[in-house]
Amino acid sequence: MTPAAGGTARGRTEQDMLGTVTVPEHAYYGVHTARALTNFPISGETLAARPHLIDALAAVKQAAASANVAVAALPEHIGSAIVAACEEIRGGGLHDQFVVDLVQGGAGTSTNMNANEVIANRALEVLGLPRGDYAAVHPLDHVNLGQSTNDVYPTAVKLALDAHLRELLGALARLREAFEGKAAEFADVLKVGRTQLQDAVPMTLGQEFGAFGVTLGEDEDRLSEARLLLHELNLGGTAIGTGLNARPGYREAVVARLRDITGISTLVSAPDLVEATQDVGVFVQLSGVLKRTAVKVSKICNDLRLLSSGPQGGFAEIELPARQAGSSIMPGKVNPVIPEAINQIAFDIIGNDVTVTLAAEGGQLQLNAFEPIIARALGSGLGNLTAGLRVLAEHCVAGIRARRDHLAAVVAGSTGLVTALSPALGYETACSIAVEAHRDGRPALDLVRERTTLTEEQLAALLAPDVLTGRRTAT
Amino acid sequence: MTPAAGGTARGRTEQDMLGTVTVPEHAYYGVHTARALTNFPISGETLAARPHLIDALAAVKQAAASANVAVAALPEHIGSAIVAACEEIRGGGLHDQFVVDLVQGGAGTSTNMNANEVIANRALEVLGLPRGDYAAVHPLDHVNLGQSTNDVYPTAVKLALDAHLRELLGALARLREAFEGKAAEFADVLKVGRTQLQDAVPMTLGQEFGAFGVTLGEDEDRLSEARLLLHELNLGGTAIGTGLNARPGYREAVVARLRDITGISTLVSAPDLVEATQDVGVFVQLSGVLKRTAVKVSKICNDLRLLSSGPQGGFAEIELPARQAGSSIMPGKVNPVIPEAINQIAFDIIGNDVTVTLAAEGGQLQLNAFEPIIARALGSGLGNLTAGLRVLAEHCVAGIRARRDHLAAVVAGSTGLVTALSPALGYETACSIAVEAHRDGRPALDLVRERTTLTEEQLAALLAPDVLTGRRTAT
Amino acid sequence: MTPAAGGTARGRTEQDMLGTVTVPEHAYYGVHTARALTNFPISGETLAARPHLIDALAAVKQAAASANVAVAALPEHIGSAIVAACEEIRGGGLHDQFVVDLVQGGAGTSTNMNANEVIANRALEVLGLPRGDYAAVHPLDHVNLGQSTNDVYPTAVKLALDAHLRELLGALARLREAFEGKAAEFADVLKVGRTQLQDAVPMTLGQEFGAFGVTLGEDEDRLSEARLLLHELNLGGTAIGTGLNARPGYREAVVARLRDITGISTLVSAPDLVEATQDVGVFVQLSGVLKRTAVKVSKICNDLRLLSSGPQGGFAEIELPARQAGSSIMPGKVNPVIPEAINQIAFDIIGNDVTVTLAAEGGQLQLNAFEPIIARALGSGLGNLTAGLRVLAEHCVAGIRARRDHLAAVVAGSTGLVTALSPALGYETACSIAVEAHRDGRPALDLVRERTTLTEEQLAALLAPDVLTGRRTAT
Amino acid sequence: MTPAAGGTARGRTEQDMLGTVTVPEHAYYGVHTARALTNFPISGETLAARPHLIDALAAVKQAAASANVAVAALPEHIGSAIVAACEEIRGGGLHDQFVVDLVQGGAGTSTNMNANEVIANRALEVLGLPRGDYAAVHPLDHVNLGQSTNDVYPTAVKLALDAHLRELLGALARLREAFEGKAAEFADVLKVGRTQLQDAVPMTLGQEFGAFGVTLGEDEDRLSEARLLLHELNLGGTAIGTGLNARPGYREAVVARLRDITGISTLVSAPDLVEATQDVGVFVQLSGVLKRTAVKVSKICNDLRLLSSGPQGGFAEIELPARQAGSSIMPGKVNPVIPEAINQIAFDIIGNDVTVTLAAEGGQLQLNAFEPIIARALGSGLGNLTAGLRVLAEHCVAGIRARRDHLAAVVAGSTGLVTALSPALGYETACSIAVEAHRDGRPALDLVRERTTLTEEQLAALLAPDVLTGRRTAT
Repeated sequence: MTPAAGGTARGRTEQDMLGTVTVPEHAYYGVHTARALTNFPISGETLAARPHLIDALAAVKQAAASANVAVAALPEHIGSAIVAACEEIRGGGLHDQFVVDLVQGGAGTSTNMNANEVIANRALEVLGLPRGDYAAVHPLDHVNLGQSTNDVYPTAVKLALDAHLRELLGALARLREAFEGKAAEFADVLKVGRTQLQDAVPMTLGQEFGAFGVTLGEDEDRLSEARLLLHELNLGGTAIGTGLNARPGYREAVVARLRDITGISTLVSAPDLVEATQDVGVFVQLSGVLKRTAVKVSKICNDLRLLSSGPQGGFAEIELPARQAGSSIMPGKVNPVIPEAINQIAFDIIGNDVTVTLAAEGGQLQLNAFEPIIARALGSGLGNLTAGLRVLAEHCVAGIRARRDHLAAVVAGSTGLVTALSPALGYETACSIAVEAHRDGRPALDLVRERTTLTEEQLAALLAPDVLTGRRTAT
Repeated sequence: MTPAAGGTARGRTEQDMLGTVTVPEHAYYGVHTARALTNFPISGETLAARPHLIDALAAVKQAAASANVAVAALPEHIGSAIVAACEEIRGGGLHDQFVVDLVQGGAGTSTNMNANEVIANRALEVLGLPRGDYAAVHPLDHVNLGQSTNDVYPTAVKLALDAHLRELLGALARLREAFEGKAAEFADVLKVGRTQLQDAVPMTLGQEFGAFGVTLGEDEDRLSEARLLLHELNLGGTAIGTGLNARPGYREAVVARLRDITGISTLVSAPDLVEATQDVGVFVQLSGVLKRTAVKVSKICNDLRLLSSGPQGGFAEIELPARQAGSSIMPGKVNPVIPEAINQIAFDIIGNDVTVTLAAEGGQLQLNAFEPIIARALGSGLGNLTAGLRVLAEHCVAGIRARRDHLAAVVAGSTGLVTALSPALGYETACSIAVEAHRDGRPALDLVRERTTLTEEQLAALLAPDVLTGRRTAT
Repeated sequence: MTPAAGGTARGRTEQDMLGTVTVPEHAYYGVHTARALTNFPISGETLAARPHLIDALAAVKQAAASANVAVAALPEHIGSAIVAACEEIRGGGLHDQFVVDLVQGGAGTSTNMNANEVIANRALEVLGLPRGDYAAVHPLDHVNLGQSTNDVYPTAVKLALDAHLRELLGALARLREAFEGKAAEFADVLKVGRTQLQDAVPMTLGQEFGAFGVTLGEDEDRLSEARLLLHELNLGGTAIGTGLNARPGYREAVVARLRDITGISTLVSAPDLVEATQDVGVFVQLSGVLKRTAVKVSKICNDLRLLSSGPQGGFAEIELPARQAGSSIMPGKVNPVIPEAINQIAFDIIGNDVTVTLAAEGGQLQLNAFEPIIARALGSGLGNLTAGLRVLAEHCVAGIRARRDHLAAVVAGSTGLVTALSPALGYETACSIAVEAHRDGRPALDLVRERTTLTEEQLAALLAPDVLTGRRTAT
Repeated sequence: MTPAAGGTARGRTEQDMLGTVTVPEHAYYGVHTARALTNFPISGETLAARPHLIDALAAVKQAAASANVAVAALPEHIGSAIVAACEEIRGGGLHDQFVVDLVQGGAGTSTNMNANEVIANRALEVLGLPRGDYAAVHPLDHVNLGQSTNDVYPTAVKLALDAHLRELLGALARLREAFEGKAAEFADVLKVGRTQLQDAVPMTLGQEFGAFGVTLGEDEDRLSEARLLLHELNLGGTAIGTGLNARPGYREAVVARLRDITGISTLVSAPDLVEATQDVGVFVQLSGVLKRTAVKVSKICNDLRLLSSGPQGGFAEIELPARQAGSSIMPGKVNPVIPEAINQIAFDIIGNDVTVTLAAEGGQLQLNAFEPIIARALGSGLGNLTAGLRVLAEHCVAGIRARRDHLAAVVAGSTGLVTALSPALGYETACSIAVEAHRDGRPALDLVRERTTLTEEQLAALLAPDVLTGRRTAT
């Protein structure tokens, strides 16, 4: 899986502080990437699996080249070639040259190096020069000019997560709308509400599905807030935030260029780059909010699975669309497989949050060396959740049906109706009626009629569906 | 630890749906609380250990009584007696009567019952009646009128956490100011900045401490945002958010009264009470942000411990104030005991976040039955962190001293200075000089002078402290 | 909350390397403890809340004094006085003198100091001397002789956890037996088994409860294994495991004495004390296994809550004993409050496991400074779970009743019976029958009779309860 | 990414309870797999990425076919064809046909279905029949005969994890040996031991590295114990552990065959298959132990990074082999990139443990529907750690060098030597010498000579390296 280092394989020989390495003839990456391949043969999941991150790296490099030309730190023809290479990558090109494992030491240095090398070699070709002719376009002196992994990498990660977040927000909105549709469809379906899994008081199925929509809408807000925090950048801070080796004017120019390139107008430079370079609080925040969304979505899926339990021996209130044969042994069984998948995506995100937390806590002094695992955890969580919610909205929620007859029958027999009479009867009288009804298996209303002075008219007023479900007040 | 249930002990006999229980003569609590004592002899930590929560319960009950009088649901003399009892509790009275274990089943019902009973019995006394005379003032029919545990309890928990948060924000501000003071004091102390624990490029110790202040200031902002979310209440929703049994006008009135009583003008009613009753997202959000603060504070304490490591065999850049003998066996040893305590508070909060997450994910249908453990986890985390940060600011950070001579000596010998020359020399030349300097144990600047054409004047300009630390640009 | 330091308060003046402190007249603790009170006013939970830990500290100190006399490092009269003081503490005396907060920096030094001081002062009284006369019996030179916090504290923590574990194992056994009793009681109650919350194939309620018992029995085994690991001690290693300042023979003698004192015959000295002093793997292991038990118990409680859901709109298969009024608003409602409490205990333990993990990961070089939070997390988790399981066994499981009629009715109508005919019919035929039965709401067996050639005799054989539930094979 | 369902694409049409689906011409998988592709387009990581799991599935199916022939449930020629197909897969064939996403609902049903279909179609070819001719060899009636996903899937997961564990144990042993080698190499290198990052008492670098080896050896033991638990199988329990539809004798036969096929002689049938089918405690246990190993390895890597910090401004005790240029901006910088990668692998595993925990806790009644995410989390954690530890042993630990001069200089100046004199001087005298030495920057031994009566001979005896490091006792 890793290229021969320092070897005899046919290819281009490159050099670094440790000696020479031969990289494959076709490779756009170079010696630093080759070292990383030997050092990090870990997960098998490479940068190529994360197009948002590659695009973001290219956007940063493009902005940097452009800004360096503007502040006269870089000759214009080199800058133009770098820009061209970056635009090609952002258009989907050369992604297969991003070969470094996502699980890597070095605080993202190998990722940055991989980008520098691919861009330099492609820029060389743009200029009509051979790959490896670094005197003309150098991965570090030119592509990385005025930069450090420590400002480039977190910036690229933030942009990649921003792209993921936009997609997730779209999927959440679609799911919310699916629930809102069901809320309207089930607006008049009376059912028993439950607390602590015990029958409580009546509500409508529409209220239940409406609450799912409302709660997701709140998370769209929270995620949007967390997204804004991603837009504060430490670009221009170079190694530790002091900006050493960045030209005057570069910092302002590079952020302005990045706004143009990405179309994200809210990108700004952090007020204290030393702080911004070492701090990964923005990722902890995002992870916490993403976890919140995961928790909510998991709770909703638990409810969907519970409400559709049965068909004979369960709650049996709704039916989820059948999506596949549920069992290899039990013919005709249908399982809630899509909600189950979402639960597991949520569990993964919740675990990832702990991973992010440990990585954040492990930062030391002027840098957090563990950003790669943070980026991986957040990227995969956001991606999986987006994919899962799309399926949930389209293939599950949209097709849910209510088992109206069963719902109505349960409400009619429910002891919970006594609660609505409690203000009229007093808690203790109501309580003794409820206990007796349950003990003897009798409808509670029969006992109310026998024991109390409430008239049928009063009962009808107190038990009107709109009153019970809070849509109208008993008069 | 639990009172005799249904027994012969001297005391007052009370009744519920399960039978009778004798509660102690002196007790303001009643039968429902007594049941809870038998059912939850778990942690030994009772409501009495959480004054903020008791005060919040009393505030909610006071607001409810007042609102019920206003909407003519409650006779004025009963309302007044309840209000008087609540004010007494909010003034610190009767806290020892809140005896239920913080770890309890029932979604907070026993906590609510404990409050209802104590308030009813104290209100009876206010009216000149004996404890237990519930026909006059009833814990449920009067004190709990128009309420359910499911709206009272989360509301009280939110108010209690709000009080905790205000204290934490004060402690954070004090700590931030302590760091800002040190940043000013150390503004001119040059040192080696580090990435990945390896010497990187120069900075000042003031920049390092300044970053600690800045990063805490950001968390004051995040916590303040999370605090605002606590102000959205489901009060008036009763059992499942439909508002069953609450009088028209009550919902608006009770929130308005609560604003007056607490002085928190941003308290509002949630737009969808069904959603607001089942959702605990606000606690997940707060827990995530609190965890973020814990992570940051832990990272800062790790840095303080690292920078003060030694005295001979460590970083030895700063000295923390000696606070106690460090060892029972090693005479004269001084340890960073306060930062170590803070680390552990942080670890506890991080673990609590997982507890909160599981409790939140476990909610089902119209209610989350696990709010008590959420309340406990957040309350103890906020309280401990507040206490810890006060000690950290006052007894540790304020007394930190810089070991200036050592810091200066390390900077002078640092190979990291070569980075500042890299734009002038090119990465590869600079690299070979650095490697050789390290290999031979020679000062890198000597090699620069031998090998390159940089003049002393150029070197002086490139290596001026203000340039190295980003406070001025090399010209 | 903290005593005046270095002050004018009436009391005994003591001295350490930082100066003098006045401790209260009545105090058995001294200057080092007083410093800790000022440094760690964090959680309010003190050593006094952990009698197992105090007893364990006294056992270690007693063993050390005795061993030091045996190797002639300590005069016999001093040793005897120390032993007497320790025995008094182990008998429950002086626990209120253990005043240090459980959340403390210093790797347990303040806990060890607190013990040293209380024991020294009590030993002085035993010898007829005044408290504070440390020339005669010194907290460090005599009580702590040949010891360091770094070997004493982890040893005491292990012994304390061992005591907790023994209690937990007892509670687990009792709970297992309660389930076994129910398994026998429900051995012939046929019901529908479920996978993924969907009706699957038949089983007995006895099998269901039997599985709960079996799974807990497995955890008794796992916890017993983890307990054994606690018995490997680093006592004698002093500061970093090299044994500096411990007399020859002391290490062997102290462990032997500790075996006698505690009655734990499996206590041994670790093979490499340097490793044993820095490693907290034993606590991570125990925490992981405890978490496993918590997960299982939580799953069981989830099942109990699910199976008892209803009474009208749920699974309604079993009834849990009513333990308290379930609601402040819904008369007659009964909730599964004990299982809910257990769930929350489990969530707390699961969070604690993360706390323990972070604390363990944070150890550095020759010591882990964060053992106090590990000890606190494990101690409280073990204690709470023990208390909770006792309640669960006695007040919940023992009183569970089966709703036999409902269970029988559901089985009779279950489509899942078709699975038993699948080998005879083929998966695809069986499948189409099941789908049609569900679609049309018809009993599946009616369709089997119409569509297939299976005789009544064959059906009876294939569907015999003992066959369906695996207790006998169809012939 | 998903095949057209029910469509016009060129291919084979297959049918299930929901209708027909066209699968690609070349596909060995069928309709059930195709449904799963539409339902679970989540992570992009498919079964094909987990060869151990594919091999294990094939082993189980092979054992089942063989056992079914033995108990006369399956015609021999079909059995032989299935066996041949399974052996081909276990030899590495057809892995690209395992296309289902690892993140899937359905409790592994889609994984089992994928295996059933691939094996059936390959078996058909073995028999000279076309793919899709399921009347001859049916994925469910033949390949899945006497089985359910609910016994097949967990069994296969256990076998796959067993294979992973064997590899991890090999990597751990290699790493341990690397540390043992270094322990021998550094046996006489005296250094300052540290507690709480402060200089404590002397030890050797060999003792430090030796402890790393010892602690890993303990985890080899713990992991081996956890591995044994994997060998208890629920195979033969079918859907819920009652064994419905499995022939008499099948259960014993299939486990025996599996022992033969896998060569794992310790495979056994669980005593209670109902319990064994729903319980995932074995995975929680393994995850906890794996986390323990991760914590230890992370702590070791933290130590390596700390000990190699510098080169000027850090501990600077050891040098790790340079593996790649450390920085894109700082020439000559070398970073501890391999330990950093390992830290991140550990953080991922620690997060995974939470994922596993939630998935385990979420099991309901007779099955845990979330085993797929458990399998994924454990499989990736084991795989990544194995890969990482191999790199750590070979490319990092083996090449570590000691900076002997620096180590010796620090020991010589260390105040910690006073501890060794404390028994002779008393704690308080020793303490005042240490404090003064630190305050005045004087060697502590000079003060000892001035202030005490200890002779040079006594000092030499007390401070002999072998005495200080516990290898010999002072006489």
